[in-house]
Amino acid sequence: MRATVIHAAGDVRLEQVPDPQVVLPTDAVVRVVASCVCGSDLWPYRGANEVTEPRRIGHEFVGVVEETGDDVQLRRGQFVVAPFVWSCGGCAPCRSGVQTSCERGGGWGGPDRDGHLVDGGQGEAVRVPRANGTLVPVDGVDEDVEEGLLKSLLTCSDVMGTGWHAATRAGVQEGETVVVVGDGAVGLCGVLSARMKGAGRIIAMSRHAPRQAVAREFGATDVVEARGDEGVQAVRELTDGRGADRVLECVGTHDAMLQAIRSARPGGTVGYVGVPHGIELPIELMFRRNVNVAGGVAPVRAYGEALRDAVLAGDIEPGKVFDAVMPLDDVAEAYTAMDERAAIKVMLRP
Amino acid sequence: MRATVIHAAGDVRLEQVPDPQVVLPTDAVVRVVASCVCGSDLWPYRGANEVTEPRRIGHEFVGVVEETGDDVQLRRGQFVVAPFVWSCGGCAPCRSGVQTSCERGGGWGGPDRDGHLVDGGQGEAVRVPRANGTLVPVDGVDEDVEEGLLKSLLTCSDVMGTGWHAATRAGVQEGETVVVVGDGAVGLCGVLSARMKGAGRIIAMSRHAPRQAVAREFGATDVVEARGDEGVQAVRELTDGRGADRVLECVGTHDAMLQAIRSARPGGTVGYVGVPHGIELPIELMFRRNVNVAGGVAPVRAYGEALRDAVLAGDIEPGKVFDAVMPLDDVAEAYTAMDERAAIKVMLRP
Repeated sequence: MRATVIHAAGDVRLEQVPDPQVVLPTDAVVRVVASCVCGSDLWPYRGANEVTEPRRIGHEFVGVVEETGDDVQLRRGQFVVAPFVWSCGGCAPCRSGVQTSCERGGGWGGPDRDGHLVDGGQGEAVRVPRANGTLVPVDGVDEDVEEGLLKSLLTCSDVMGTGWHAATRAGVQEGETVVVVGDGAVGLCGVLSARMKGAGRIIAMSRHAPRQAVAREFGATDVVEARGDEGVQAVRELTDGRGADRVLECVGTHDAMLQAIRSARPGGTVGYVGVPHGIELPIELMFRRNVNVAGGVAPVRAYGEALRDAVLAGDIEPGKVFDAVMPLDDVAEAYTAMDERAAIKVMLRP
Repeated sequence: MRATVIHAAGDVRLEQVPDPQVVLPTDAVVRVVASCVCGSDLWPYRGANEVTEPRRIGHEFVGVVEETGDDVQLRRGQFVVAPFVWSCGGCAPCRSGVQTSCERGGGWGGPDRDGHLVDGGQGEAVRVPRANGTLVPVDGVDEDVEEGLLKSLLTCSDVMGTGWHAATRAGVQEGETVVVVGDGAVGLCGVLSARMKGAGRIIAMSRHAPRQAVAREFGATDVVEARGDEGVQAVRELTDGRGADRVLECVGTHDAMLQAIRSARPGGTVGYVGVPHGIELPIELMFRRNVNVAGGVAPVRAYGEALRDAVLAGDIEPGKVFDAVMPLDDVAEAYTAMDERAAIKVMLRP
């Protein structure tokens, strides 16, 4: 089959690789219906994370079960969403809703704990370990699913669940004021999540007109283009000088985190989900103002069923973060578009 | 009157100072019935915080209202608890329960926002600004209150409210496992708070027998003496290898915070209240394991009525953290005893 391999910063290629097989009785093989490029894929692509040897890449996909091991209860042909890590569903962290800390789980595109390759998502098919725990089944949908719905289901693999995690950990309550730092797909899904939780005011920090438009469609009531001191000042002005009840940090840089913490009111909470790169948390400021920092790598599996159902019911259309669709053959172009911010998010179809 | 002045590290003196007066209509003058030395008073005493000029010290006291400004609704003779900061009670942060960020408030022992001195608590009397907002009235008690009850009421001024804040921000739920880092008065009150919130298991980290005894009396089910890697390992062993649901960090040093974060299970929360000194938060570890850090300088005023009522009802006896009582004249000795950890906490009586 064809699958994406990252060789070095800026060097992503679609290559011929072995077809995945069921290796363990808990495995399933899923034929990918759609996958995408994640903001976090850009860290190695941009050289921020070292690529020591060529490796498979991609961790967001939806597809159809093609083959199952003896212990897997999913039927062939079942449409599924794959969260961005695989997890057993039965250990203590999984049962407490932190599947990203699964005692048996791991990530896509590398070896599992027995040394067998787990394919990356940006390919034609994937061996899915711990399929019962990992996959979120979607009934009433097959590979011919309408593109809008497909896009929204695909966001449940990562960005929608991640935005939801930010809003959940920030503790957004009905009527509160929420600032969202970051206008990538996760930030936009954070806006949508804040709206779903009943936020009264949602301030999106964005300086890109197309992203601002999606933010407004998702529920942003205000947009702030300024950053740094001016950005903090702008948020203060919108909140009677006090800051926001909740802030969602959806970037991962030091500047974004500082922006987030400084935008929170005394006693407020920053829900953060951006992979940290160079963040030094200002503990004295946090302490003095009682600003909490909650979050981490999003256990999107925990939210799989609820978000799937909201999508299927038509309550939310997070798929609108996809502003480009490309064939898998053009995966290198998809990376370029994401890297240059020419696209918010690109869906890839094998 | 006599009041305590810190001149430099290690140099604390009881001196003659002017009697406090009502200056503003929102002031009250409170005659101190009891005060105490705080762990945070030891930071300047030990030279960790610079003392640039002699200044009043002490921020925990209970007493009796002696004089009131025209806007003050407290009656003369009213017994009151003074939280460790004064606050208006009416601004947005006060109304949201973060009185430590009061827009009109401040600390004891320095000038108010109009430049008038606010006395420190380790003295015979104190000018209390914003008395309506600041003071917690205690009915049915006067200056002749029995010593055990007096001690418990005095803890509502700081350590009990601070331990309660740690447990509250950590989000302790019924049946959960809680680790408490720090066996000072705040840590011990954290143990008590965890018990009040229904924790199923409370692991106190302490290597001092008298403090361990109080911790057990307050509800600790386990005591861990080890620190660092061994301490983390000991907590893991007590929790099936997983870590605690909630951790209360009641010290403020880097080692204590790291101990706390490493003791938490994936998805757990550290409630921290120790004044941070040299803490660098391990954001990558927090992110990977979804360990939240919540807390800050405790708005004990927010908890004043509830904790007062629990004390008056006899539900809790946090006053047991006081293992020494000294006359105010011996304030320098009280500092020495605290500094050398010869006493957990010293009550001072003018």
